[in-house]
Amino acid sequence: MNESGSASDDHGTVGPCVGDLAEGELLERIFPRLPHADAELLGPGDDAAVVLAPDGRFVVTTDTMIHGPDFRLAWSSAHDLGWKAAASNLADVAAMGARPTALVVALAMPKHLPVAVLDGFADGLRDACAELAPGCGVVGGDLAVSDVFMIAVTAFGDLEGRAPVRRDGARPGDVVAVAGELGSAAAGLRLLFSRGVDADGVPSAEAAAGLRRDHRVEVAAQLAPRPPIAAGVVAAVAGATAMLDLSDGLALDAGRLARASGVAIDLRAEDLGADVALALAGGEDHSLLATFPAATTIPAGFRTIGMARTGAGILVDGVAYDGRAGWDPYRDWDDASG
Amino acid sequence: MNESGSASDDHGTVGPCVGDLAEGELLERIFPRLPHADAELLGPGDDAAVVLAPDGRFVVTTDTMIHGPDFRLAWSSAHDLGWKAAASNLADVAAMGARPTALVVALAMPKHLPVAVLDGFADGLRDACAELAPGCGVVGGDLAVSDVFMIAVTAFGDLEGRAPVRRDGARPGDVVAVAGELGSAAAGLRLLFSRGVDADGVPSAEAAAGLRRDHRVEVAAQLAPRPPIAAGVVAAVAGATAMLDLSDGLALDAGRLARASGVAIDLRAEDLGADVALALAGGEDHSLLATFPAATTIPAGFRTIGMARTGAGILVDGVAYDGRAGWDPYRDWDDASG
Repeated sequence: MNESGSASDDHGTVGPCVGDLAEGELLERIFPRLPHADAELLGPGDDAAVVLAPDGRFVVTTDTMIHGPDFRLAWSSAHDLGWKAAASNLADVAAMGARPTALVVALAMPKHLPVAVLDGFADGLRDACAELAPGCGVVGGDLAVSDVFMIAVTAFGDLEGRAPVRRDGARPGDVVAVAGELGSAAAGLRLLFSRGVDADGVPSAEAAAGLRRDHRVEVAAQLAPRPPIAAGVVAAVAGATAMLDLSDGLALDAGRLARASGVAIDLRAEDLGADVALALAGGEDHSLLATFPAATTIPAGFRTIGMARTGAGILVDGVAYDGRAGWDPYRDWDDASG
Repeated sequence: MNESGSASDDHGTVGPCVGDLAEGELLERIFPRLPHADAELLGPGDDAAVVLAPDGRFVVTTDTMIHGPDFRLAWSSAHDLGWKAAASNLADVAAMGARPTALVVALAMPKHLPVAVLDGFADGLRDACAELAPGCGVVGGDLAVSDVFMIAVTAFGDLEGRAPVRRDGARPGDVVAVAGELGSAAAGLRLLFSRGVDADGVPSAEAAAGLRRDHRVEVAAQLAPRPPIAAGVVAAVAGATAMLDLSDGLALDAGRLARASGVAIDLRAEDLGADVALALAGGEDHSLLATFPAATTIPAGFRTIGMARTGAGILVDGVAYDGRAGWDPYRDWDDASG
């Protein structure tokens, strides 16, 4: 922060900091940027919001993103953060077979963070809702000050009269299908950890900018994923017996579905793309994994990658999978800032 | 943390730390301790929960508590934290005239935090729901690791067919009434800041224990408040024209109600208790401030403290209030740990 109370960060942003404005001023500034929810009956500004739940139920999920374990400001733009916070939560709603209706967003921000970051974050929320879940918007939230930048999003969905698609409904003989990328987000994260750093290993905005240019698809999949949100409802309508969001990698998440359902999942390596190991172990794709009865026509957006069988655990081409069941470089990452 | 991975903190807790257990192990440990929600159709364990919204709408509010700005582990027990996180959010639901139905809870915890703190936190959530909002429970959440202990609760409520009681409905001539304490939480906080510290001014568990013994009411009002949650529905049924939760002090919050409604609020000093200044400025009571048409019988649990008039702003005994409009010693508190 300079003497006039403005700041410039790695992104070249200049302007007031979060700590320079009162909470009310910050709220007035970002409300107009936030996406409106069609389901909103009463929006921000009172003790609580009121949201439509037309079929007498609502789906709810919450997920937190924390600077350090979950993101780096050197790598993610503010827009990326808002986008990913929305997208990752929308995917959980979609994975129940629901249509996302609304979000509430709690932010804890360091005082020295430029207010422009808050603006960009709001724009990212807006653009993610507009592209991935039209009609979904922000109905409320909370702003707080913290030494650590933290984002907690709670997302809501409408089941439109359908039963929720749980993870425990797969049966032997069901076809296993996926909508969305496998391994791309992990490929992007691997690139960022290996080459998005300076000579001392500290996350670098300059290095990340080069990666964004040269490896656009993978880096975007990691920093601003585009999960197939609408495919959740499509799968439910088509009769999916089980579904979940791939947040921790195909092997780990398919294992959860298999365990909950009491089946084995046998995946076909040739359907998992060029890098099978990465497809199996790579997290944060937020793709949708679903099972369908064998007689079902697999709906548009999904592709078959295997079959549920009697037994337990994950197989690849009929052989028990014993590879690394997750990809999380953050886990062992040191505390270098960035 | 000692060499065996266990820990002892100011509360004398010994056992494993949060960082010693996988997220799945932590969840298995706390699920049984969490309160069940009568409105839960599908609880924790899938991508999202499903909650009843019987009248086709739900009320939602979210609030964050952050170690440092909002609480100190030296002062609050883990049970206090769970209790207060629930109570403060339940009060926002109640202030809409709704019955609280469910919570989702996102926690970010330092790795070295004893798991016993998580247990106590869950017990506090459970006990607050049982006492303040029977039938309300936890339907989902998120656990994350962070250098800063942070709690984000999102709470839901059922309007049971009624219109929400907003803050903009007060009319000149309405009676102004309050349910719950005025100034007690601030008195407790003042005691903690002045006498709950060691010789160096650092928050001290030992000093706080003495205060808990000698000033039980005030310290409990600050650390584990008991807002009159059921009074929210009572006020709505009685015909309250406006209502809000007193989180930032009577003067500031009544000012918000006055501004939203386009009226002046004239408070009677003799109805504000022994310490009028503290009643006006003291935050975090989470009492309910409501206005009722003059002909209304003020419902049980509420007491009259003034009247809405034509004009603007806050008056005390007919004179414009120009006192300190909030009480927040955290705001100027240094960064001493504790």
